[in-house]
Amino acid sequence: MLVEGAPVIPWQQALFTPRGIALIGVTNDPTRLNGGPLHYLRKHGYAGPVYPVTPHRDTVQGERAWPDLEALPGPVDHAYILLNTDDALAAVEACATAGVRVVTLLAGGFADAGAEGMAKQQRVAALARSRGLRIVGPNSLGLVNFHTAMPLTATPALLRADMIAGGLMVISQSGSLMGTLISRGHARGMGFSKTISIGNESDLTVGEIGEAFVEDAETDAFLLFIETIRDRDSMARFAARAHAAAKPIIAFKLGRSEAGRQMAVSHTGAIVGSDRAADAFLGHLGIIRVDHIETLLELPALIGRRGPPARRRGAVGVVATTGGGAALVVDRLGMLGVAVSPPTDATLAALQARGVAVQPGQVLDLTMAGTRYEAMRAAVETLQAAPETELVVAVVGNSAEFRPELAVRPIADAEGRKPVAVFLSPQADRSLHLLGAAGIAGFRTPEACADAIAAYLGWAGPTVPGDGLSPAQRSGLRAVLGATVEGVLDERRSLAAFATLGIPVVEMAVMQADGAVPDVGFPVVAKILSPDLPHKTEAGGVALRLGTPEALREAVARILANVRGHAPQARIEGVLVQRMEARGLVEVLLGYRRDPHVGPIVTIAMGGVLAEIHADAAVRMAPVSIATAREMIEEVRSLALIRGYRSLPRGDVAALAAALAALSRLADLPAVAEAEINPLIVRPEGEGVVAVDGLLVLGDGALGATLSGEGNHA
Amino acid sequence: MLVEGAPVIPWQQALFTPRGIALIGVTNDPTRLNGGPLHYLRKHGYAGPVYPVTPHRDTVQGERAWPDLEALPGPVDHAYILLNTDDALAAVEACATAGVRVVTLLAGGFADAGAEGMAKQQRVAALARSRGLRIVGPNSLGLVNFHTAMPLTATPALLRADMIAGGLMVISQSGSLMGTLISRGHARGMGFSKTISIGNESDLTVGEIGEAFVEDAETDAFLLFIETIRDRDSMARFAARAHAAAKPIIAFKLGRSEAGRQMAVSHTGAIVGSDRAADAFLGHLGIIRVDHIETLLELPALIGRRGPPARRRGAVGVVATTGGGAALVVDRLGMLGVAVSPPTDATLAALQARGVAVQPGQVLDLTMAGTRYEAMRAAVETLQAAPETELVVAVVGNSAEFRPELAVRPIADAEGRKPVAVFLSPQADRSLHLLGAAGIAGFRTPEACADAIAAYLGWAGPTVPGDGLSPAQRSGLRAVLGATVEGVLDERRSLAAFATLGIPVVEMAVMQADGAVPDVGFPVVAKILSPDLPHKTEAGGVALRLGTPEALREAVARILANVRGHAPQARIEGVLVQRMEARGLVEVLLGYRRDPHVGPIVTIAMGGVLAEIHADAAVRMAPVSIATAREMIEEVRSLALIRGYRSLPRGDVAALAAALAALSRLADLPAVAEAEINPLIVRPEGEGVVAVDGLLVLGDGALGATLSGEGNHA
Repeated sequence: MLVEGAPVIPWQQALFTPRGIALIGVTNDPTRLNGGPLHYLRKHGYAGPVYPVTPHRDTVQGERAWPDLEALPGPVDHAYILLNTDDALAAVEACATAGVRVVTLLAGGFADAGAEGMAKQQRVAALARSRGLRIVGPNSLGLVNFHTAMPLTATPALLRADMIAGGLMVISQSGSLMGTLISRGHARGMGFSKTISIGNESDLTVGEIGEAFVEDAETDAFLLFIETIRDRDSMARFAARAHAAAKPIIAFKLGRSEAGRQMAVSHTGAIVGSDRAADAFLGHLGIIRVDHIETLLELPALIGRRGPPARRRGAVGVVATTGGGAALVVDRLGMLGVAVSPPTDATLAALQARGVAVQPGQVLDLTMAGTRYEAMRAAVETLQAAPETELVVAVVGNSAEFRPELAVRPIADAEGRKPVAVFLSPQADRSLHLLGAAGIAGFRTPEACADAIAAYLGWAGPTVPGDGLSPAQRSGLRAVLGATVEGVLDERRSLAAFATLGIPVVEMAVMQADGAVPDVGFPVVAKILSPDLPHKTEAGGVALRLGTPEALREAVARILANVRGHAPQARIEGVLVQRMEARGLVEVLLGYRRDPHVGPIVTIAMGGVLAEIHADAAVRMAPVSIATAREMIEEVRSLALIRGYRSLPRGDVAALAAALAALSRLADLPAVAEAEINPLIVRPEGEGVVAVDGLLVLGDGALGATLSGEGNHA
Repeated sequence: MLVEGAPVIPWQQALFTPRGIALIGVTNDPTRLNGGPLHYLRKHGYAGPVYPVTPHRDTVQGERAWPDLEALPGPVDHAYILLNTDDALAAVEACATAGVRVVTLLAGGFADAGAEGMAKQQRVAALARSRGLRIVGPNSLGLVNFHTAMPLTATPALLRADMIAGGLMVISQSGSLMGTLISRGHARGMGFSKTISIGNESDLTVGEIGEAFVEDAETDAFLLFIETIRDRDSMARFAARAHAAAKPIIAFKLGRSEAGRQMAVSHTGAIVGSDRAADAFLGHLGIIRVDHIETLLELPALIGRRGPPARRRGAVGVVATTGGGAALVVDRLGMLGVAVSPPTDATLAALQARGVAVQPGQVLDLTMAGTRYEAMRAAVETLQAAPETELVVAVVGNSAEFRPELAVRPIADAEGRKPVAVFLSPQADRSLHLLGAAGIAGFRTPEACADAIAAYLGWAGPTVPGDGLSPAQRSGLRAVLGATVEGVLDERRSLAAFATLGIPVVEMAVMQADGAVPDVGFPVVAKILSPDLPHKTEAGGVALRLGTPEALREAVARILANVRGHAPQARIEGVLVQRMEARGLVEVLLGYRRDPHVGPIVTIAMGGVLAEIHADAAVRMAPVSIATAREMIEEVRSLALIRGYRSLPRGDVAALAAALAALSRLADLPAVAEAEINPLIVRPEGEGVVAVDGLLVLGDGALGATLSGEGNHA
């Protein structure tokens, strides 16, 4: 091909609206994976030029086949390479030569297949980069443009007769799940703008694809199926622009469990990070994460173009024609921490004024009022207008199956502004379609319904980041770090660094053998100070509760003798003497690290091993504002102990939030890989916090494996 | 009617196979709730005699109507009373007079409507009892016999054209949910034997109905939708007989959340107990509880007639044609604690021997082998035969939608014995029907699939109860209790009672003012002994760490003075002197109480308020065996601290289990309402446990509200 004088078009255009498509290596058997794309393009009547390319046959599936790209009569912007792993590289080279802009690669056996495969993938990516073409995959089942009926894909989901054009764009790291979402969406009458199986992301990534189509007039919302986060910067740009365009991004991410994380590794060669960190990252960007796969499809209608809820974690009002069905949703909402607001007297009176009498209770139960249009419509509109509700849940019982006009139609007709989530208790496909056509969110299961509501009400949009370092803090830190660029700072220097950030640290001083007794106040703790002794207690390097100068002097001598006996080679910088702090109300752990996938994160957890056992921690992208730090404190269940639980004394949450925000400013200093304060003692309200021990790791963080930071609590 | 000489038939027969049906108060409009039953019976061609009874019209829905029961030409065994609340009582009376055996009551407004309604319900129930007829409801949407096409029900779910006869019997406290299960089951091609909406259970209960149909040849499995447990004895009989008949009982119970429990109260007038207690009760009886509503329908095929799994909490083996779809299930299984066993070398070799090459990994991924009949069939049968798996999960990707013959049919044809759960990633109704027809469990969502698998693998059948009291223990307890029949025993007597059960308790003695110093070993703790001072510390009634006889004497004098100042009226029985125990590894709380719904239960939790915050406790029906007590200890997450977590020292789990089993023997002594040991100190392995404080409550337990027992942790 390489038609002389044909203009080069942008890759974004070549991706979904190419002037010509080449199917390289397409086979004659349409039931085989690499025969499917031609079959689907023809079956759905794609109107643009499609060229089967294979040197082995004159015809493929009854059509003329071309031996190579040079032979083609028109320009090809997008080639789907259906060859096996080892033939793919040469084909990419040929595409580059022929001026193809985008190549999609079907074959696996690249990063999904160990080190050897990874090397092949790197060769492909390097070639593409050097020749100016972009790659989807490898390991990609292709993509679909629903508005031009272009199923450039190998997924058998396109064996279907229909393709429904709509506003949902799917970007999936799993090709199979792209097909699944098309299948399940279509069964519900939901339409898509574009779907893409992004595979191993050797070149084009979720973020870059998303960013390219934020302005796409055919796309209203983005659905992501992701196993790992490979491109945090482009994800961040994508999310920011989507938020500005009021187009929600909803993600299903694998890896809530360890087994799920391992599956993601084996499945696509993803190196999968901490799920907690990913969760923090998605939340930070204002990407909504759902827990049930069908919620991905159901949530966009609930959101519409509304953006985040006015009151985050606001209450829902519930109306139902079935008490049992309503209880299914309410019970599940309760498990997810979503509050149901019982109708107020004013709401009941407003409904009464519209001729619908309902008994007070947790929900508006229309059983007595009867299953009829007027009652349901009045109830939905009254709840939408009620100040106590942020969102309305309507639950329709068995009438929904055969008589949608009674209690489903009026929900579609309701004219209030607040979002409405509808759970249909029976199998009621006609009603689901009716709701879908009206742009109302209908749910097949109470579990997905509650999942969507909790996800929506928990959505805050992009997080406002906290402050970075002040110039004084930056120069103070530089002074503490000195010439060190790699490794674990000792406790004294680490605490000094934290003090520079404005975190209160324990009074301390270094004492040498036979040196002067420092003036930090008694009683004190004495600890060996050595870069070579991570386990001070085991080395006999710690003495507690020293009440007098004499006791301290004795202890210092003993510690030094112990350590010399235990580890004669250890470098010893003296003995750290700290004022012994009273225990406070609780002891917490504050952690910071640069996550390899998502970037700097900050963690808070209760101190001690129980926090780990209960996986009770909060994680956010750093730096955090004071407001976000307070939200994190709320999130740690154990910290109920200092939030006034059962009339226990309140802790100094303000000081704790300030310390957390201060620690998170380390994000502003890339030299720091990891930091941990453990414990930070939290005193009663107004009495502050104090850091008693901690460490800071510089460099690439490889040494940080010795710290018990976020990784342990995630 | 009252045909002379007509034999009286058993209520069980009258319920689902009556010789004649009266519809009392049926209306002419078939779209109204109380017009529906006649319409549905005719629509589905019910063959037996049905008599509309109403004094207001000569015809109803085009049929002859009778003015009263006396006028009927044949016997009526079952009457569905469709009148309003206040007319229902007279109708029940008329039914009794006419010799009707079973009456089903549609109207609500009884126990579901406050005290006044409750009084009406009690009148109806008393009347029925005195006249020998049985009642379903009130608040019942009726019942359906699918094998005789008898929809004696008001649920609009029967507007459907089809009624599918099969083996599932539904017993539902919610009428709406009965309809929902019929609707959702029929949409999947699943058939029912009988379904019944049991309403307020004024007379016939879930347990009694279930027990009556355990031998029903048409019924293979029971599905319960329950909001509360009203009839523990008949439930227990039902469950025992169903287990003996190898017919599983599967329950969806509302009330995992507080909001859900409140809904159940408002919805049916149920007084809803602790969900933890109900969970213990169901598990004890061998009733399987599921978390997702559709799992109720999907689980029976997984179980078949297998009974509980050979290895409880065994591992699953997974085969998939889609890595992403498999990951959806595996991730969810991980969240529920179900282990996935990767195929062993032997399994891979066995598969290779059948011509299917699969790479090692977490699951058998057939992507490379291709989506074809032989590969899937070989994989399923190989996994079924593999010793490492207890259950096989097969996940089929997009081929399932249009080509069931490729990877779904071979699962149906597989001939191994182990159960197979199939998740179909796309919407694939034909494949679901194909599996259903073959008796294979197919799942629409990965969430329900994982729920079903976790429920099945957690199923142990009925629990073997622990021992009751020995004669010596019984007489020992009687001696401790003496003449007391009601109220809280003081700490000394409570601990003495626990000692009688064989639980090690702290050394103690009672000391009077100026009395002799008891010989329990020093240091000691001194606490005021008074039935009138539940809060000893606030009254100045406690002194700790007393190291010498002198310190003890002083402390006793001070305590007595404090208490006289604080509460001059309090009865004082002396000062309890206890040896001060070392802290041990952990302190736990053991609780016992007679739950009003389910009966005696025993609880274990970590001591302290965090156990409450994390809802971290285990609950079982008492008495428990040592084996069950050990299982409970495993279940408390915090007790990982004494189970060898992160090389922490192991606690004396054997002694702890023995103490728990011993406490649970109180179930054998109905005089005890409630008991709590808090704390029980657990020492290192081999060093035992010791109860340091505790209380025992006699009588009806109303006083027990002062204890912080299971209720707080549930």
